[in-house]
Amino acid sequence: MVTMRDVAERANVSIATVSFVINGTKRVAPQTRARIEAAIEELDYRRNVVARALASSRTRILALLHPDLEARPNATVIQFVMSAAHGARERGYDLVLWPVNDDEQMSHLLAGGLVDGALLMEVRICDSRVDRLVESRVPFALIGRTENDDLPYVDIDFATTIDQAVGHLRSFGHERIALVTQRTKAAPGDEPGRIMRAEAAYLDATAALRRRVRRPPAVIAVEGTSAGGREAARTLHDDFPDATAVVLVNEGASAGLVKGSRALGRSIPDDLSIISASTTRELGEMIEPSLTVMAAPAPQLGRLAADALIDQLEGVQDTPPHLLIPCTLVPGQSVGPPPEGRRR
Amino acid sequence: MVTMRDVAERANVSIATVSFVINGTKRVAPQTRARIEAAIEELDYRRNVVARALASSRTRILALLHPDLEARPNATVIQFVMSAAHGARERGYDLVLWPVNDDEQMSHLLAGGLVDGALLMEVRICDSRVDRLVESRVPFALIGRTENDDLPYVDIDFATTIDQAVGHLRSFGHERIALVTQRTKAAPGDEPGRIMRAEAAYLDATAALRRRVRRPPAVIAVEGTSAGGREAARTLHDDFPDATAVVLVNEGASAGLVKGSRALGRSIPDDLSIISASTTRELGEMIEPSLTVMAAPAPQLGRLAADALIDQLEGVQDTPPHLLIPCTLVPGQSVGPPPEGRRR
Repeated sequence: MVTMRDVAERANVSIATVSFVINGTKRVAPQTRARIEAAIEELDYRRNVVARALASSRTRILALLHPDLEARPNATVIQFVMSAAHGARERGYDLVLWPVNDDEQMSHLLAGGLVDGALLMEVRICDSRVDRLVESRVPFALIGRTENDDLPYVDIDFATTIDQAVGHLRSFGHERIALVTQRTKAAPGDEPGRIMRAEAAYLDATAALRRRVRRPPAVIAVEGTSAGGREAARTLHDDFPDATAVVLVNEGASAGLVKGSRALGRSIPDDLSIISASTTRELGEMIEPSLTVMAAPAPQLGRLAADALIDQLEGVQDTPPHLLIPCTLVPGQSVGPPPEGRRR
Repeated sequence: MVTMRDVAERANVSIATVSFVINGTKRVAPQTRARIEAAIEELDYRRNVVARALASSRTRILALLHPDLEARPNATVIQFVMSAAHGARERGYDLVLWPVNDDEQMSHLLAGGLVDGALLMEVRICDSRVDRLVESRVPFALIGRTENDDLPYVDIDFATTIDQAVGHLRSFGHERIALVTQRTKAAPGDEPGRIMRAEAAYLDATAALRRRVRRPPAVIAVEGTSAGGREAARTLHDDFPDATAVVLVNEGASAGLVKGSRALGRSIPDDLSIISASTTRELGEMIEPSLTVMAAPAPQLGRLAADALIDQLEGVQDTPPHLLIPCTLVPGQSVGPPPEGRRR
């Protein structure tokens, strides 16, 4: 059988250069490319990936397993998906999208032998899909984390993110800060990890403050929609009238919270300061007034997840990758000092 | 070699049911599934997709070719991607994401033999990628259209969409209607088809009106960003002060146009009515006031594109599919009658 080495020798280039041309992973000068293509033709080198997969028992295909997001995927999720595809391609791998909501369907897809490895999104604290992944023996990396910190993952560092958001609000003088998270249909413990981690981080970050002002935590969970955001504005107004600032960990409800608060006669940021955490700059810019956001590292995380998985597949990495990256503060016009009358 | 038929006979079920279990395309009752899995094991039936692909010279993998959207993909694009993946999976195919900006890279990927067919997004009027696709002999369907209407495509019906948007504004009494489209770095003729088709549709839909009020067309092209939207608001204010309504075909500039217009002292819809065409309801809801939108049929189009491609692959369809679907009017709060003083 003709190998890539034979092609490289005939074309008088390195094996890496042949690989760049065959896998389309890097630009190669036109003359060099022409020489390699001539060598491929002369030697009748099979470029067929199927044949190659059978020969190597590797397919160089990775799966991105995600819940069926057809309805309304948010901006951050898109950045994950696109950057994972891009990162995989740069290393000569292909990413298939598998919308699966059903554990059994997932197991069968994994058992089919199509993919060398899998990335899992929207990871829950207790996640039966992760158990299935472990059983399948297909190498994987999680975007998010379960309770089990030993598994390979990349995730947003919610502890640091929320701590910075609360710190930013405190630097303006806010003492009574609420948290708006996302309500899901999942059973307790079965929620996406980000919801529980964000809440834990909020409780930590505001503990000393709450002891001082003698107030219980103010946590509001609503749907990730405009209607959910308006509901949060109403609950905030009725149940936590002394809160002068909000940290949102609910991208889809951000616009609704702003619109709902204004409809209730609260000016932003004069009456209420708002930070939307784990979202995109673009979302912040779309809203009026422009929201101060903690921008999610989604473009990096998707790529890092692909890298972490490929490192495992290629034996580059011995220990499971554990990467936590915080969001980045992007100031807008939705944070200011608390109203004088409410300060205590 | 053991076939699916052998498994079906042993398990006493139809071949279709075996296929549902193997390809994970449909739920099967647990007892039936258990019987099929037992038969698979007893007969040592190879579920390996690679072996199957080699046997059938088909991989059942489709590629979605898209420009590198890592930077800021918009909401409509992701609905295309997710619905195409979902539609493919429902018919037992897998969708790989290929971010390609380079014709040569694309040709090499297609020559690799991984995919049975390809979907191409962000199609331009003159698109060298389409020529490459035709050369590759890999079956394909376009999401969008080139000049050549004979190729297989699914697309948004911009003529009907813009006509309906203009008609909606006219029913409120607007006579001077501007169009805001997207400026790209592409050479003329090389733009995405939607930009040229939307402009042509605007010229058609407003022709009689413009003759009557004796005004030239008012077309503004800006970047698809918040800054672009603010630039459009400024140009509208300075160059077309008599325009009382705008149709946008520039999703990313929608929020900026609203914010920019308000910053210039124009109330929406009292001074200026706005319709954003070819976007999502969710985007309309996020903006204040809620935008009247023409919602893109993105969730349907992605699936229809996958179906059109698979129909070709499976010989269901003899003629190239040509599907045009208009956007749907979703009224918000951004359209009202023109201000009295400006009516003419």
